Amino acid sequence: MWNTNNASQLMETRYPIIQAGMAGGVTTPELAATVSNSGALGTIGAGYMTPEVLEKAVIQVKDRTDQSFGVNLFIPETPPIMAEEVEKANIILKPFHEELGVEAAEVKPPTRGNFEKQVELVLQHGIKVCSFTFGVPSKQLIHELKKNNTLVIGTATTVEEACINEEQGVDIVVAQGSEAGGHRGTFVNEFDKAMIGTMSLVPQIVDHVRIPVIAAGGIMDGRGVLASLSLGAQGVQMGTAFVTTKESGAKKQHKDAIMQTNEAETVMTSSFSGKPARGINNQFIRKMRKYENELPAYPIQNSLTKVIRSEAAKQNRSEYMSLWSGQSPRLSRDISAEELIESIVTHVNHSLHNIKQL
Amino acid sequence: MWNTNNASQLMETRYPIIQAGMAGGVTTPELAATVSNSGALGTIGAGYMTPEVLEKAVIQVKDRTDQSFGVNLFIPETPPIMAEEVEKANIILKPFHEELGVEAAEVKPPTRGNFEKQVELVLQHGIKVCSFTFGVPSKQLIHELKKNNTLVIGTATTVEEACINEEQGVDIVVAQGSEAGGHRGTFVNEFDKAMIGTMSLVPQIVDHVRIPVIAAGGIMDGRGVLASLSLGAQGVQMGTAFVTTKESGAKKQHKDAIMQTNEAETVMTSSFSGKPARGINNQFIRKMRKYENELPAYPIQNSLTKVIRSEAAKQNRSEYMSLWSGQSPRLSRDISAEELIESIVTHVNHSLHNIKQL
Repeated sequence: MWNTNNASQLMETRYPIIQAGMAGGVTTPELAATVSNSGALGTIGAGYMTPEVLEKAVIQVKDRTDQSFGVNLFIPETPPIMAEEVEKANIILKPFHEELGVEAAEVKPPTRGNFEKQVELVLQHGIKVCSFTFGVPSKQLIHELKKNNTLVIGTATTVEEACINEEQGVDIVVAQGSEAGGHRGTFVNEFDKAMIGTMSLVPQIVDHVRIPVIAAGGIMDGRGVLASLSLGAQGVQMGTAFVTTKESGAKKQHKDAIMQTNEAETVMTSSFSGKPARGINNQFIRKMRKYENELPAYPIQNSLTKVIRSEAAKQNRSEYMSLWSGQSPRLSRDISAEELIESIVTHVNHSLHNIKQL
Repeated sequence: MWNTNNASQLMETRYPIIQAGMAGGVTTPELAATVSNSGALGTIGAGYMTPEVLEKAVIQVKDRTDQSFGVNLFIPETPPIMAEEVEKANIILKPFHEELGVEAAEVKPPTRGNFEKQVELVLQHGIKVCSFTFGVPSKQLIHELKKNNTLVIGTATTVEEACINEEQGVDIVVAQGSEAGGHRGTFVNEFDKAMIGTMSLVPQIVDHVRIPVIAAGGIMDGRGVLASLSLGAQGVQMGTAFVTTKESGAKKQHKDAIMQTNEAETVMTSSFSGKPARGINNQFIRKMRKYENELPAYPIQNSLTKVIRSEAAKQNRSEYMSLWSGQSPRLSRDISAEELIESIVTHVNHSLHNIKQL
């Protein structure tokens, strides 16, 4: 059957469906646990979590499910802080600070420390799956995770990046097409060059690696799952489809924006974090467009805009929030994660049944 | 069966596969006829053809096949010629003229005359299928074509454009995803906003129109066909996959460039024609990038660069040629159009057979 392939066996899930590790509060323990209890792979989006917050989330998920689940981590980037650059960015951001009545943020130099503690927790708690984006873990780290029986999933946005994942020893690679919402996982190619549509990216990666490939980008329902399997992927990763579910921790404004927008209203922006990401176009993105090439690098810019994003949510000012979304918002639904997965499984089984009747 | 759906019945083909109507000499009568004789829909890319050239092509295709085939036309755009703008463009193009030893081109104001004569020929020769891009024909023209038993196929790059096609009375709509090579068919939305990946675009259009939807963009083989059908499309349109076939009239440099490039090397450019199109990055595109917003509109810029493109081909200077390609060049093959279609049909039938055995 479609659901008992290599990828689902490796992940120890009933279905080869991954709930993407969206950072920033979307992946509540309720969401990850519900997804895993429904037969897919729930994921804690731990990218921005402190070790304390991550450990609490892990314990809460474990309390709610005995099924396999994952933790998603960001390969750390540690650019130096340039005082002048930060000062300039805060001048650019000043109108938003004033509008919202907040002070400019102060930033500390990014370090690898948090990542290392996150990894320790993954090892310590015997997490079944650890997925990575923004790069590939070192061979040594991958070795340690595997020794611990943790499955390692990487992210690629080009064939070259998929091959690097395989060479490093990653078990499964997610092919992130240009339709995908949120941050690009690009780490070798230039961001602009690595905007390959899912229909093109998946079969080209499948032809160049031996490890299982998971399709991501624009997939929202059973049709997208069947299409991905047709392209040679062994499963799918879905982000936006889970953002609007009842269990998601996304802000109401974010959920509403996805439910109300259309396929032509998302854009790429690096203004929120310093790294290109796809979200629904709004005033913040439009006003920051002309400064995009002058902003501090990720994750410094991310730290600088955090106060704006969270205060905007409090004040119900979605024009200043990061409203991440892929290119299929018309397919989003206000249902539970369990219903979403059930409807996908029903569609896929029904379609396969129909083919058998031909 | 997968191939006896509404779209293939309407097109009167064995398989719901369309060879895209690529203009500029790619779609030789041999190519269109071979495709139609192999059970798919061959198409004469007549966009830039004079009535004489089109009529000759139609007669040559009819000599080679009694199967259904199509003619693809461009909805005409007639911007006024601004002498200063043209003069400026020719100054920008001067280094290329000098490099190739050619004179600057003179341009006449674009008119609707050629299009009207093309349409007359379609009616006169009882062409089975007439497809359009760069806009939607008038209701009156669609009515005339239908009265003549000519099936009308339109192009859309967003849900809104697909709905307009349906409202106008178009029989089938091609959903052109952002992976597609060559020119964008965008005619209502801004070009930048209408870059929707095929995985996202197809199901969203399928949900909003009742007419059959044909998927296009990144589709090169049986995997792409199965994926498109899974997304709810009734068939596919493939361009790049046919460019490298033996029967294609594409220049050798163009075929070689597609066979040798990879998914991260195509870019969008409007420098060749004044209208955004996807092609393999080269020196012309790179050098013209900074002038893109100052160039004359399509089709004026297209007329201005024609001498450069054709002379470059003669001198084997592919760095100045328009090397249109979609985002799946790694899947291109140096085979005959018949072999390409056979391999697709074999893959699809084999996959469906395998599902039945599960």
